[in-house]
Amino acid sequence: MNETLLKEGERIDDLQCNGLRIIQDPDRFCFGIDAVLLSNYAKASAGDRVLDLGTGTGIIPILMSEKTKAASFTAVEIQEESANMAKRSVELNGLTDKIEILNEDIKNLSELIKKSSYDVVTSNPPYMIDNHGIRGEKDYMTIARHEVLCNLEDIVSAASMALRPGGNFYMIHRPFRLSEIFVMLTKYKLEPKRMRLVYPYVDKEPNMVLIEAKSGGKSRLTVEKPLVVYDSPGVYNKEIYEIYGPEWNKD
Amino acid sequence: MNETLLKEGERIDDLQCNGLRIIQDPDRFCFGIDAVLLSNYAKASAGDRVLDLGTGTGIIPILMSEKTKAASFTAVEIQEESANMAKRSVELNGLTDKIEILNEDIKNLSELIKKSSYDVVTSNPPYMIDNHGIRGEKDYMTIARHEVLCNLEDIVSAASMALRPGGNFYMIHRPFRLSEIFVMLTKYKLEPKRMRLVYPYVDKEPNMVLIEAKSGGKSRLTVEKPLVVYDSPGVYNKEIYEIYGPEWNKD
Repeated sequence: MNETLLKEGERIDDLQCNGLRIIQDPDRFCFGIDAVLLSNYAKASAGDRVLDLGTGTGIIPILMSEKTKAASFTAVEIQEESANMAKRSVELNGLTDKIEILNEDIKNLSELIKKSSYDVVTSNPPYMIDNHGIRGEKDYMTIARHEVLCNLEDIVSAASMALRPGGNFYMIHRPFRLSEIFVMLTKYKLEPKRMRLVYPYVDKEPNMVLIEAKSGGKSRLTVEKPLVVYDSPGVYNKEIYEIYGPEWNKD
Repeated sequence: MNETLLKEGERIDDLQCNGLRIIQDPDRFCFGIDAVLLSNYAKASAGDRVLDLGTGTGIIPILMSEKTKAASFTAVEIQEESANMAKRSVELNGLTDKIEILNEDIKNLSELIKKSSYDVVTSNPPYMIDNHGIRGEKDYMTIARHEVLCNLEDIVSAASMALRPGGNFYMIHRPFRLSEIFVMLTKYKLEPKRMRLVYPYVDKEPNMVLIEAKSGGKSRLTVEKPLVVYDSPGVYNKEIYEIYGPEWNKD
């Protein structure tokens, strides 16, 4: 069965999480530690409806389907090839009744979903500001990493529209945009409530930031203890091993 | 000479920084590590005019007069007793030609100074939100710590008015207000450019944040490596010893 699920250049990777697998094309875009950290940082309660914006190959809903008791996931991806891989990964994992992949532009989200109908929204969006537009063949990389087809405001406004009052938005992003992120979240009534900086080493600048914002929340932010990735070169910190799960790195 | 400089209950503390001293009343309010960290974090170039908002007993301009080559300091304090102590500390250190203490309300700042006339503004403001107003005899404590007489917007708007384009604003504050701080700075065209979180221990939540914002700056924030205060209980981290200076803790 797996053979028919795969297109040329694609492979199936074991997610080391209760047998979950994902289809990726190493020439296109493979998920990184950021997606894993976000799927661990985001909380969803039993029965929650979760929306993932810019899902790529579906890594976040696939991991969260195992890590949480959420009832259902809607995952939106504008790139047809990525959305198609995500759909096949959902089939591969037998999750078609739980995860729906929409190959759509999040700028049209208000026509696709009901306002205030989600309990949780997640996003691992493109990090980099980009004013150069589409440039060439490797555009799937550019689109995943740069704000070519959607920018921070598109993501935040979509999350704000989709969330019920009191619902939570989870995002991972780059620290250099933190001020802009807080201003944007506040503009769309998503109040930053928790934030955790991810440091490659304890004595280095952070390179990622995890954020939880509450729809209509009151102003009070908890800045959490640092999340340090490496204890020494090649040696992950204990917490990173725990996030990746007990099965990880066994082989 | 020192005897006549002191009022009842006051004492003179050695700042362990090239002979600098400060008059404090331990029953009122003594400066803390936050003022020392801010005076070290703030940069001022040779010839700069520096404004300190809510100076208390003048600790920040007194330390920065030694740590930087700034030409002059204006320091504003609303509480008469604190401003009076600050003036006497300035005299005690022979800094009357360099530091001017104004016993004024920063809400009247636009009548006291020329707009855009400062290169650097510093502030170690009251941290806590307070809607209860003046309550009793110990109000000098409340005023120094809670936003009774001035709030974040008063500080930020005063800094914005005072700074020349391209001038820098330095503030230390509590992380739980970080989002609000970024929103306020952005509102007043003070763009957050640098930020450093201060952690009591490397595996604990931060309890202070140092911020540099530039008047009219472009949006791009550098989140710096963590500043850790203690290596173990009672044992300061090496960097804290360096900030306090070589003379500190000798006796």
